[in-house]
Amino acid sequence: MTDPIKRHHPGASLSRLVEFGNLVFVAGTTADDKSASCKGQTEQVLKKIESFLGEAGSDKSRILWCNVWVADMAEKDQMDAAWQAWVDPKNKPARATVEARLATPDTRVEIMMICAKS
Amino acid sequence: MTDPIKRHHPGASLSRLVEFGNLVFVAGTTADDKSASCKGQTEQVLKKIESFLGEAGSDKSRILWCNVWVADMAEKDQMDAAWQAWVDPKNKPARATVEARLATPDTRVEIMMICAKS
Amino acid sequence: MTDPIKRHHPGASLSRLVEFGNLVFVAGTTADDKSASCKGQTEQVLKKIESFLGEAGSDKSRILWCNVWVADMAEKDQMDAAWQAWVDPKNKPARATVEARLATPDTRVEIMMICAKS
Repeated sequence: MTDPIKRHHPGASLSRLVEFGNLVFVAGTTADDKSASCKGQTEQVLKKIESFLGEAGSDKSRILWCNVWVADMAEKDQMDAAWQAWVDPKNKPARATVEARLATPDTRVEIMMICAKS
Repeated sequence: MTDPIKRHHPGASLSRLVEFGNLVFVAGTTADDKSASCKGQTEQVLKKIESFLGEAGSDKSRILWCNVWVADMAEKDQMDAAWQAWVDPKNKPARATVEARLATPDTRVEIMMICAKS
Repeated sequence: MTDPIKRHHPGASLSRLVEFGNLVFVAGTTADDKSASCKGQTEQVLKKIESFLGEAGSDKSRILWCNVWVADMAEKDQMDAAWQAWVDPKNKPARATVEARLATPDTRVEIMMICAKS
């Protein structure tokens, strides 16, 4: 018998959230309002991810690994300001931040995560 | 006693496929015929990955997380056309797609995955 | 009761190393001496990661998945020379290497890993 996989919010190409065992995989997440700055977009993304994690029985104290892509490394400080205001200070994940062109020119940040269930 | 790791297709730098517990890690995979378009290369990559997954006791209904790199974000639609024709419609993974310069200029797409064993 | 997560070397934004179950997540790691070449920086990074893995009860024979970012794909050969001199020849991980602009212009390589505990 195979271990079950639970997939949330399927779209045309991907599921926004996938549960397997005690792990939760969050798809690359971008802001809805792309007129916002990198900081504002990061705030939106983290709020959205926090809600996703709740659906999958995890929360921001249980993030294991996070990949952040910023459209311009000069805006990393903006991302980090929003990140540091949000992240659980006692439970910071492993993370890598690199620059990449994202889906649209006004997409300033994209974040994926692997988390543990609570 | 440590949990065993099974590695497939070792090359100079990496193994194409690594099994650990109920997880399977697929290395960044590119097309063999790089004269093909981004769509054609994606089709080749997905066919190759499908074969790899079979060797490791997984299959395309068990993909958890996928990172796609396209050489030009303007070609993402081509990648997605091939992807959507291939992906199990009931079992779409979490995924992120970003742009990156890849190993050679004619490499249009590279895909890695973390999957669950069947 | 939730499975415990052990976090090492927390900084302003992230932990350098996170243990969960039989997995170890290593944050994106860069060289301390960024005046070194891509090859020299890769040697520094791998030495640093090897020390991290020891702290978390893993080692370089237990790497499952590795993402390498090089600042210039023309320097991938330098990274691979250092990598191939370091990697356990019988235990090569799945890996993807793509180009990305990194935190500072003199950062030539960044490496993250998911490993199994020993």
